[in-house]
Formats: sequence, structure tokens, C-alpha cells
Amino acid sequence: MASLGSGAPGVISRHRDAIEEALRAALEIDESPLAGPSRYVMGWQGTDGRPMEAGGKRIRPALALVAAGIFNADPLSGLPAAVAIELIHNFSLVHDEIQDHDDVRHGRPTAYTVWGPGQAINLGDFMYGRAIRALSESGADPSRCVRAMAVLMRAVEGMIAGQWRDISFESRERVSVDEYIEMIEGKTGVLLGASLEMGATLGGAAESEAATLGRWGTRLGLAFQAIDDYLGIWGDEVLTGKTTTGDIARRKKTLPIIHALDDPLAGPLIRTVYADESQMERYDEVVAALEAAGADALCRDMARRFANEAEDMVAALELDDAARDTLRSVGDYFCQRDF
Amino acid sequence: MASLGSGAPGVISRHRDAIEEALRAALEIDESPLAGPSRYVMGWQGTDGRPMEAGGKRIRPALALVAAGIFNADPLSGLPAAVAIELIHNFSLVHDEIQDHDDVRHGRPTAYTVWGPGQAINLGDFMYGRAIRALSESGADPSRCVRAMAVLMRAVEGMIAGQWRDISFESRERVSVDEYIEMIEGKTGVLLGASLEMGATLGGAAESEAATLGRWGTRLGLAFQAIDDYLGIWGDEVLTGKTTTGDIARRKKTLPIIHALDDPLAGPLIRTVYADESQMERYDEVVAALEAAGADALCRDMARRFANEAEDMVAALELDDAARDTLRSVGDYFCQRDF
Repeated sequence: MASLGSGAPGVISRHRDAIEEALRAALEIDESPLAGPSRYVMGWQGTDGRPMEAGGKRIRPALALVAAGIFNADPLSGLPAAVAIELIHNFSLVHDEIQDHDDVRHGRPTAYTVWGPGQAINLGDFMYGRAIRALSESGADPSRCVRAMAVLMRAVEGMIAGQWRDISFESRERVSVDEYIEMIEGKTGVLLGASLEMGATLGGAAESEAATLGRWGTRLGLAFQAIDDYLGIWGDEVLTGKTTTGDIARRKKTLPIIHALDDPLAGPLIRTVYADESQMERYDEVVAALEAAGADALCRDMARRFANEAEDMVAALELDDAARDTLRSVGDYFCQRDF
Repeated sequence: MASLGSGAPGVISRHRDAIEEALRAALEIDESPLAGPSRYVMGWQGTDGRPMEAGGKRIRPALALVAAGIFNADPLSGLPAAVAIELIHNFSLVHDEIQDHDDVRHGRPTAYTVWGPGQAINLGDFMYGRAIRALSESGADPSRCVRAMAVLMRAVEGMIAGQWRDISFESRERVSVDEYIEMIEGKTGVLLGASLEMGATLGGAAESEAATLGRWGTRLGLAFQAIDDYLGIWGDEVLTGKTTTGDIARRKKTLPIIHALDDPLAGPLIRTVYADESQMERYDEVVAALEAAGADALCRDMARRFANEAEDMVAALELDDAARDTLRSVGDYFCQRDF
């Protein structure tokens, strides 16, 4: 999933220290030769083992605590879910980096460039296991724990299926917009949804309430991704901090590209430009063709549709005003950007 | 771990159909794009999806049922443990094959040669998840389930650490016998031990009894590996079905080689022969140097020591005669071969 901008609402940043401490504890149980490398992945130390501070934003764990708090439980009751989901996210990054040949993430060499692909497979496997243990050995109420584990494992499978689809698309001539949505639902949506559903479950929510909150999160993730795909081409470079030529220059098959590949005019042009680096000077021509094919409007429509679906879901929940305000601020955080 | 020979005792082969059926059920829940490939890995279908029968011997699941039965429970109460451990074993094979560049296993192309290394990473991750679910969603008694899960996850970590060590040894000049034992304990011992400990746990054994049985299994695994390493050089080709030049020709760093690398005479010779394919004609010279360095005796001593330690552990358990006979036949199966 793409990065969220700065300016997280208080409800997201409030418990960052508690989350970080719980994450550290999860990677320190039963010292293993993989514990040090896993701490490197989390941003706490360099390749030489020396301490450093470069952790991520921990959006997913924050959502788990928000969800626990929504139902009037102590937000920290969601910590085992928070830790599990963040470790799953990081295990998936370690494996994705091997699959995508990504050498650098947030300015640091990726695990597979430091330890080699074979050991990076082991490292991801190790963090996957620690994620499970963070929940199964948390000492939380057993019946809630079993339910949260079922949510987690379905989400992990959805995520893996999303990654499987993403790789399989590389060798395919045509991918439909529906298939693309299904893929990003796995890669971006389900872990966000699971953060909320698991947090709510540990916080004592009824199964149906937790599931509704989970679906809300999945939809927010889809809305966010549609917006991000739009901004990757039409965004304000000053606001996004990224060049808008980036997604096309990197030949990414984002939502507008997937849509326009089926267009009789834009399709052949994109194929030509994507197949030959020297054609990148035709960038403006590609953007014009995307617009003529309605790719920009499609992204905006999709984002609005997903955001509206998310809102409808929350409307169905019985919540007090404070809880509703909290969810609104989280929703705005994911879909805040003007487009 | 190396393969066990044929001639499994009845207690190992008795519930094969029930195990196979439970394994199939575990890979059929919530259909996923990875379910088909996972069934290929298990030997039930070809790459084209057509049914075939080529499943493994399912030693580990059988041990889980043996362990449940030992404490007078229905052996089938160990099924969730049996399925979990066999899926973990198979996930580890899929990832190991990528790491070791193994193209063929039991006469079939490995997953990474069929789907590519990126998708094989996903496939292993998927089977890892199904292993967890086989236990966490089994509906078995929750407190037993939580204990069995803790055993499973420690074993998975031990296995991953073993694989991490194995890969790290490749780039090292010297590896001690103790380090080698620690590595094979992870790669071969802990999953065998966990099969027994988890099965006993689900069958209602006390925590200390289950743990003792687990340590017994780990020791049996070590004894088995020491014997196998011995037979890889000094075994009777007719009995083992393998050429005894195999381990040396494939430049494997097995126990006798690890030991002899520290010997002032054998060490330099092995390094020379392992570094240069054309030196393989000096095979007989290498074997003589291994013997002069006491490498054959070391393997036999180690195997006996581990087998004796295993026997002592079982002796401490309170068991009826039938249970003791069962364990003896399993022990003999692992350490049966004359050497």
C-alpha cells in the first residue's frame, strides 16, 4: 500500500509509544538468530546492530487501538491485535521486496539486499510466526483471542492472494478493473479491515459490530488506493511530495492505466510507451489519452463510491457521538486529499 | 530431513487415510487462487489440476496420532496437530527449495520451478497460514489448543532458525560439530518433537508428559540424522538405495565432513576435493582420511548417544506396556538400521 501523508489525527498518533514498546517485546521473546534482523526491518537498529530510530507510522496498529476504544473498552486492550497486524505487514514487506526486487525502502537497504533472498525468506517467515505468537500467547480472553485469530488468518490469506494476483498480472496482456480491485483489496484493504475488526473483537465488540468495522476499514483502504492511484498521475507534486511522472515512468499498472489499456486509442499508446524506455518523452501524450479515455474520472468515481460505501457502513453501527467523531477523523485521514 | 525407509510399523501407517482426508479438508476451506498449487505440493494433483496420487509418507502426522493414543485418548483427537505439522513441513519444503535451488523432489518439478520463486514464496506463506488455521479453527478444547499452538510456534521458529543457520554455514570457513547439531536439531528434530508434544497435548496429556514425549522425538530426530549422515558415506548401497558417493559428490557438509574439516590431514584434503570437481576421483582417499580422523566412529557414537538419551526420556514416563511397545516400535523405526 502507498504511504499516507503526514498530519495523522490525534487518535492515530496517541498511543505510538505503547505500540512501539509492545512491538519490541514481541521481537525479544526467546532470543533467536533472526531477532536482530527483524529489529532491523522494524527500523530500530542498523545492519550492525546499533540502535537507530526509523520506525514506520504504525497506522495499522493504531487502527486496532481505535477500534478497541470505540466500544468503550481500554484502547490498549487491542494491543495484541496491533502487534500481530504490524508484524504481518512487515513480514509481507520483506517477502514482497524479494518478489519485486526492491532494493531500498524509506532510504534503507531492504532485508534481501542485506542478507540475500534466501535469508530474507527465513526472516519473513520468522516475523510471520512472531505475529501469530503476539496474539496466541497474549493472555487475552481465550474466546476473543480465537475469534481475532480467525480474522487475522483470513486477512493474511487475502493479502497473500492479492500478492499472488499482482504477480500473475505481470505476465498477462489484459487485466480488468474488477480484477484490479480484487487484487488491491487483498494488498491494501484486508489488513486495514482486519486491524479494526481484531481490535474491536479484543475490545469486546459483538461479532457483527466488529465485522462491520472491518468492512469499513477495507472500503477505506480501497478508497485510499483509488485516490493514491489518481494522485500518482494528476496529483499536486507540492502536496503529494512525489513527481506525477513517477507512476508512468515506473511503468506501474495502476487503476487509470488498467482502465485505459482497454481503450482503443489510449491502450496501444500506453503499450508502446511502456515497452520502450525511449518513448517516455511522450509522457504528456499519455496523460492526455488517459483523460480522453476517462481514466481520471474513473478514479475519482471509484474513490467516492468506496468512501460512500464506507460511510454507509459506519452509519449502521450504534455508536455515541464521540465514537462517531473518531471514526470520521480516521475516514477523513484516509480520504482527506482534494482531488 | 532425509527420507525414512519403507517398512513403517503399523502404528505409523494405521491412520493414513484419515490423515489424508483431514489434510485435504484443510486445503479446501475458503477457496483461494493458491489452493490448487498447494494441492500440487501435497502430491494430489498435477500442474494442470488433474488428480494424481503421490503424497508423502506423512510420518509427522502419524506421530501426532501415536502421541494422542499413548495417553489412552482416541488417536484421532490428535488430527488438528497432525494436519498443522504436515502443512508446516510442506510450507518449509516449498521455501527451502527456492533457497537451495532444488528443481526436483520425488521425481516432480518443485513449486518454484513450476510457478517461479516469487509465487513459491506466496505458496509457502499460504500453506503456513493453513497450518495455523488447521489448529486454531479446529474446534478442539480451547485450553489444549492454546498450549498446542505455543508448541507449534516454538517449533516453527526453531525450524526457521535451523534453516537460517544452514544457509549462514555456506559462507563460513569453519562450523563446529556443536553448531551442526544445533542446526539439524532445528531442521530435523524440533518438528518431530512438536508432532508428538502437540498430539499428546490434544490427547489430554499433562504438560510435563507432553514435553517429555516432545524431547524424545527431538532426540530420535537427531539420532536418525546422525545415522543418515553415516550411511550417506558408509551405508550399504543395496539397503539404503542411495549411492554412498552421493554425499561427497554433492559436496554436502554432513556430520562426518564437519568433524573431519578440523582434522589436520583430512581437512585440507576435503577442502581441495570440494573446491574442484575434477578432484572427485580422489573419493577413496577422502573416505580413508575421514576414517583416519574418526569421522565414522563419531557418527556412530553420536547416534547411540542420542538414541540412548531418547530411551532414558521414555523410561521416565508412566506408561502401560502397550504404550511402551508402541514407542519402542517407533524408536526402532527411526534408529533401526545396522551401522
